[in-house]
Amino acid sequence: MERSKFILDEKDMPTAWYNVQADLPEPLPPLRHPGTKEPTRLPPPLFPEAINEQEFSTERWIDIPEEVQAIYRTWRPTILHRAHRLEKALDTPAKIFFKYEGTSQAGSHKPNTAVAQAYYNKKEGIKRITTETGAGQWGSALAMGCAFFGIELKVYMVKVSYNQKPYRRNLMETWGAQCVPSPSPDTEVGRRILAEDPDSTGSLGIAISEAIEDAFARDDTKYSIGSVVNHVLLHQTVNGLETKKMMMEQADAYPDIIVGCVGGGSNFAGLFLPFVKDKLDGTKPDLRIINVEPTSCPTITKGVYAWDYGDVAGMAPIVLMHTLGHTFVPPPVHAGGLRYHGMAPIICHLHKLGFVEARAVNQLATFEAGVQFARTEGIVSAPETNHAIRVTIDEALKCKESGESKTILLAHSGHGHFDMAAYDAYLSGKLVDYEYPEEKVKEALKHLPEVPSA
Amino acid sequence: MERSKFILDEKDMPTAWYNVQADLPEPLPPLRHPGTKEPTRLPPPLFPEAINEQEFSTERWIDIPEEVQAIYRTWRPTILHRAHRLEKALDTPAKIFFKYEGTSQAGSHKPNTAVAQAYYNKKEGIKRITTETGAGQWGSALAMGCAFFGIELKVYMVKVSYNQKPYRRNLMETWGAQCVPSPSPDTEVGRRILAEDPDSTGSLGIAISEAIEDAFARDDTKYSIGSVVNHVLLHQTVNGLETKKMMMEQADAYPDIIVGCVGGGSNFAGLFLPFVKDKLDGTKPDLRIINVEPTSCPTITKGVYAWDYGDVAGMAPIVLMHTLGHTFVPPPVHAGGLRYHGMAPIICHLHKLGFVEARAVNQLATFEAGVQFARTEGIVSAPETNHAIRVTIDEALKCKESGESKTILLAHSGHGHFDMAAYDAYLSGKLVDYEYPEEKVKEALKHLPEVPSA
Repeated sequence: MERSKFILDEKDMPTAWYNVQADLPEPLPPLRHPGTKEPTRLPPPLFPEAINEQEFSTERWIDIPEEVQAIYRTWRPTILHRAHRLEKALDTPAKIFFKYEGTSQAGSHKPNTAVAQAYYNKKEGIKRITTETGAGQWGSALAMGCAFFGIELKVYMVKVSYNQKPYRRNLMETWGAQCVPSPSPDTEVGRRILAEDPDSTGSLGIAISEAIEDAFARDDTKYSIGSVVNHVLLHQTVNGLETKKMMMEQADAYPDIIVGCVGGGSNFAGLFLPFVKDKLDGTKPDLRIINVEPTSCPTITKGVYAWDYGDVAGMAPIVLMHTLGHTFVPPPVHAGGLRYHGMAPIICHLHKLGFVEARAVNQLATFEAGVQFARTEGIVSAPETNHAIRVTIDEALKCKESGESKTILLAHSGHGHFDMAAYDAYLSGKLVDYEYPEEKVKEALKHLPEVPSA
Repeated sequence: MERSKFILDEKDMPTAWYNVQADLPEPLPPLRHPGTKEPTRLPPPLFPEAINEQEFSTERWIDIPEEVQAIYRTWRPTILHRAHRLEKALDTPAKIFFKYEGTSQAGSHKPNTAVAQAYYNKKEGIKRITTETGAGQWGSALAMGCAFFGIELKVYMVKVSYNQKPYRRNLMETWGAQCVPSPSPDTEVGRRILAEDPDSTGSLGIAISEAIEDAFARDDTKYSIGSVVNHVLLHQTVNGLETKKMMMEQADAYPDIIVGCVGGGSNFAGLFLPFVKDKLDGTKPDLRIINVEPTSCPTITKGVYAWDYGDVAGMAPIVLMHTLGHTFVPPPVHAGGLRYHGMAPIICHLHKLGFVEARAVNQLATFEAGVQFARTEGIVSAPETNHAIRVTIDEALKCKESGESKTILLAHSGHGHFDMAAYDAYLSGKLVDYEYPEEKVKEALKHLPEVPSA
């Protein structure tokens, strides 16, 4: 019998996160202040000091506090699967592995950083956190993290999702968080927008602005973010470290290709960073790392590499990254987690240096792949993950043509049990493709901030 | 560090199911034919021969076919958790363990038998299966099982659930099953009911009748059932066998109390049967096994032990069991899986012989327990499971009073990600308790069939 699953004992779990900033051949460019445009740290009153330090640290290993490890152990380590049944259905000589994060209590990878962030806030005496959420995956993960540490959480949820996706909101409330539709009457920015348009359905940009305003206004409150920035990617490396250990020590395999979906980039970077280390030091020069994004929001494949705001409202720091313009609003694909105008600076930096590549895929093809995965491996995946499954299958089919027995590692970010309406749309023929919205991007790119050279 | 999780390597998985019929001090009474009322096997054209044999076998160990083991390995073994955080919140000296079945692709224990049943049908050349489903947990698990073996599946889903719970239906369709609202125009019984009442919202009884009629009508089609009967409990023992091995070999613990929820009984019996073996042979006389049921549908605690039909329409075999009467329709508690008038004959037999006990709990208290579990262990549980969590917490609190450090093992049957509307109702104060519907039961018990002595 060939093994189907690789399982790590909890005593062998990683005890430190891997910080790629220690191994970059060129350092990351510093952030710029949204007002002065000068180099800056994270807005200091918004984040706990430990988080701010991690954001810019160049230490290779950062200890995972025992309190965080103890909570990781409620669902980690997660399992590395060999997709025997998918391989057989594709009739491919490729070996397909996938690391599955859908068994966390929130059903995705997001708790890896949510728990860490809640811990550091607690340690610095913070009583309350604010955040924004789109479809609700991040808001619900942070709600769980805050429940574990007894921290109050207020989530500003984009109103259209708040109304359309009550289940994610119910999940946050079950874990004890307060969730309000944004724009809300609870902040100045929310009141201003509601005065202009009482029927506003909100946007992630508005929700971020509300969460930040709320955190600035109260001494006992800090703000938390679920992707893009360095410390979030750092926390996610617990997943890649587990995977690398299992592949090398148990499966006796090393990937030729690693595939994952990217919105802000934290899920996939969490998996691939411990492997990219081997490209940075030259030991695995041929390893391919493919970032998969939607055709409708192709940040790396079509965006420019430029200084831009991390948020739509221009309140967040300016970063050097691939961007479609911070005012760009992507088409309404079901993969809500991939609808972001920018990309994690670490991924963009690695892309510029030639260590990772990117590919865009369209919606219908991702669901076709997701359904094939469901009918072979059983798992009904999140629409975001289906993007990575599409490219995994494509690469496996290339192996069938070439006869190569490559090892493909898929970053499987979570289950789709909260996204069944998207499957319904696909199966009933109502799902559509979205082409690259070139004109909208051109318009948005006119609004990039000008930044003086350092 | 005290361990939080116990994990079995897949090579140590059980390779045979445990059949308690080998160890019963008195054999189970035979089924009776619904028409002749004489002793009978399962209606032969409805089930594959292998299933029919398992139903009445008295072999202690029944090999799990390698093809079924291979599919079990896509999600099994599941993890045994120690609920350190819940213990701490309760300030109890009790040790609480829980075996968690929510990481299966369907989110529950149901695939354990779905996969086995699909396999035996496939092996006997069956092309198509029919079944009924209430809230959709069983229908979706069988859809996954049939996808794995390339068998066509038609699910008759109670119409009120079909309309209210589209996500479960979408899940079945994603796995390739056909799901129709029952009563449907596809069967004679469906057409008859629709002619009488075009707005009928259906019932499990009607759906069973439709699925059975459909299976009888076609040579290539057989019928499948997800709980109550012996072969379903047999397949579920894979869970209890894993648990027993992990507790004894890894946790160095043996439960004083085992707690689980019972509707038809297959989830809990699957966990406790390998342990009840030690009571039957006298080695663990003090082990307590608590079956938890809803106050609104208290089959064991308030029902009579009598011959009754397994289904509402009186088409299924007559069995000796605890029953509230096959015409009894329970109040609409959210734990849809616990709304069954009868109980697995094996559990009833063990109860009569004094090897297991039962307790009824009301709805609000179960959600209170479920929310405490979610905020300590993270997992948002199915409403059915919340019944078992309630009694687990109650027993742990008794230990706090008495100072006893008992070991409690909870059968955790699945996550509640498809049941968030129930949590919403609870958190917004709309959830209500249902008292025992004594008059309705009295009425239903007038309709028990008369059965001649064997």
